[in-house]
Amino acid sequence: MTMNTATPVSPSVVLAGSQALAGFSREMLPGLEVALRDAVQTPDGLSPVVTSALERALGVGGRGTPGSRWRPLLTLATARAAGVDATTALPAAVAVELTHTASLVLDDLPCMDDATERRGQAPTHQAVGTGGAILVAMALLAKAAELLGQTPAQGGALAASWGRAFGLDGMAGGQVVDLAGDFRAGGPARRLHRRKTTALSAFATEAGARAANCPEPCVQGLTRFGRDLGWAYQLADDAADLKEDGRMGRAAGGRAPRDQSRRVLRQALRQLNSVSGLDPEGRALLEALAQRASLFPEAREMRNWETLPLQR
Amino acid sequence: MTMNTATPVSPSVVLAGSQALAGFSREMLPGLEVALRDAVQTPDGLSPVVTSALERALGVGGRGTPGSRWRPLLTLATARAAGVDATTALPAAVAVELTHTASLVLDDLPCMDDATERRGQAPTHQAVGTGGAILVAMALLAKAAELLGQTPAQGGALAASWGRAFGLDGMAGGQVVDLAGDFRAGGPARRLHRRKTTALSAFATEAGARAANCPEPCVQGLTRFGRDLGWAYQLADDAADLKEDGRMGRAAGGRAPRDQSRRVLRQALRQLNSVSGLDPEGRALLEALAQRASLFPEAREMRNWETLPLQR
Repeated sequence: MTMNTATPVSPSVVLAGSQALAGFSREMLPGLEVALRDAVQTPDGLSPVVTSALERALGVGGRGTPGSRWRPLLTLATARAAGVDATTALPAAVAVELTHTASLVLDDLPCMDDATERRGQAPTHQAVGTGGAILVAMALLAKAAELLGQTPAQGGALAASWGRAFGLDGMAGGQVVDLAGDFRAGGPARRLHRRKTTALSAFATEAGARAANCPEPCVQGLTRFGRDLGWAYQLADDAADLKEDGRMGRAAGGRAPRDQSRRVLRQALRQLNSVSGLDPEGRALLEALAQRASLFPEAREMRNWETLPLQR
Repeated sequence: MTMNTATPVSPSVVLAGSQALAGFSREMLPGLEVALRDAVQTPDGLSPVVTSALERALGVGGRGTPGSRWRPLLTLATARAAGVDATTALPAAVAVELTHTASLVLDDLPCMDDATERRGQAPTHQAVGTGGAILVAMALLAKAAELLGQTPAQGGALAASWGRAFGLDGMAGGQVVDLAGDFRAGGPARRLHRRKTTALSAFATEAGARAANCPEPCVQGLTRFGRDLGWAYQLADDAADLKEDGRMGRAAGGRAPRDQSRRVLRQALRQLNSVSGLDPEGRALLEALAQRASLFPEAREMRNWETLPLQR
C-alpha cells in the first residue's frame, strides 16, 4: 500500500518549502553557473568561436539567458534530501544541464524542429552552422559522460543510466517518434514519446541520489519521483500552450492537460513520500521544486522563478 | 630508459603472431557480430526503419559490409594480453565499434564531409535523412555509454575516459579543427587534429585494459600503445592516399608518410614492450594486430584482412 497512499502536503509545509527553495537556489545557482562555465573551457588549438558557441548554448558568461536550471537544481536538492551536502552532486548537476542543452541544440536544427530562437538569442546552428552545432552537442554530451563517470562509488551505474536516458529507450527514441509523428497512433509509440521529456527528469533525480551514494531502493524511488515530475511538467506545459492559443482544450479523448498535470503531480509526491530515510528539509525542497516546476511552466524561462509566489 | 628502449620484433614472433591473430579473429568475430546486432535492437513503438538504419550503419544483419572491426579486435586482444578471457571485454569492444560508427555517421553528413558512400552502400543520412542520421548517432553513443558504465570495477573510469575520447580534447575537437582547416597552422591545432584518429584507438586499448581490471600503470601503458598505433595507422592511410593519387609525396616539410608510419609503429611497439606483466600470447596478438592495422590500410575495408600475408 505504501506506494499508492496519497500523502497530502499541508499548506504550511508548502510555504516553508517555498521559502527554503528560494534560499537554496540563491545559495546554489552562482556555483552552478561557475561550474557550467568551467565545464566548457576548450583545449589549446581550438578557435575561441567554439568556446563562445558552447557558452551561448548554455547561457553562461553573459551570453544569452541561462534558462530555469530547474533540472540541475532538482539534482542538487535530491542529493540534499538523500542526506549529503548538495554540492556533492554539483558535477552530476552540471552533467544534467549539459545533456539538456545538447538536446536543445540538436532539437533546434533545421532538420529537426528548425527553431529560430532559443534562450533569448538565435539558436546555435545559426551562429556556427549545422556541422558546428552538432559538434557543440557532442562536446556537451562528452563532458557530461566525463563528469558522471568520475562520480565516486556509483560512477559506472550513473553513466549506464545516462546512456539509457538519452538513447532509444529515452530522449532519442522519443524524438524519433516525434519526428515521425507516430505518437498519434497511441500504444507503445505514445509511451515512448513521453520519454522525450521524462527520461531526463528521471535521470536528474537519479543523478542526485547516486552522487549521494544512496542505496538502490532509495535510488529507484527518487528516480520514479523524477519521472512523474517530468510528466507533470510536460502536461502543464501543454496546458500553457493551449491557454496561449486561447483554447481551454482537452487532449483527444482525455482530461484537460491542467487537470492531468495536477493528478500526475500528486502521484509524483506520493512516490517521494514512499522513499524512506530522507532528510526532512531536503524532502521539503523537493516538494517545493515539484510544485513550481510542474505548475508554472509559464515561468520556465524566467530568472528567479523559484521566488515567485505559489498560486494554486 | 625502459620507455625508450627499442625492442626489435623477431620475424618468427611476427609469423607466430600472424597465425595466432588469424585464429583469434575467426574465434572472436562471429560473437562480436551477434553482440553488435543485439546492441541495436530497438524498443517497442519505434518504426522498424530505425532498427534497419542502425543495422546498416554498423554493417550487421546482412546489411552493407561490416568494415575491418580492427578497433574492437584491438580491445579484445588487449584484454587477452592483460591476462583475462577476451570475451570479458566484449561489451567494451562493442562500445568501441558503436562509437566509431557514430563518428562515421556524423562525419558523412552533408554539413560535414558530405560522403556519398560508406561500407559499400549509401551513407545513413541518405537512407533516413539528416535528422534521422543524427538520432542514429545519438542512439549508438547512448548504447556505448550504457555498456561501458556497466563494466565491473572500472565502469566509471571507462565512461569518463570515453567522454574525453569523443569530446573536444579528442574526436570532436579534431573534427572542429578539420572543418575549420586550422590544422594547417601547425602547433596546438595540429596536435588536436591528430586526436581525431588517435583518441579512439587509445580508447580501444584502454577499454580492453579496464575491462580486464588492469592496475593503473598497465592501463596507461596500453593506452599509449593504442594512441601511437592509431597515429601509425593514420600515416599509413595518408601514404595509401598519396599512392592512389600516383604521387610518392612527402607531407609539407616532413618525411614521407610511409616512413613516418614505420617510425611511429616502432614507437608503439616499444610502448607495448614497456608494459610489464602481460600474457606473452596476448602480447604477440597485439604486435600482429599493430603490424597489419598500421601497414595495410589498403585492406581496411576488406573482410579477413587479418589473414593476409604480411609484406614488409
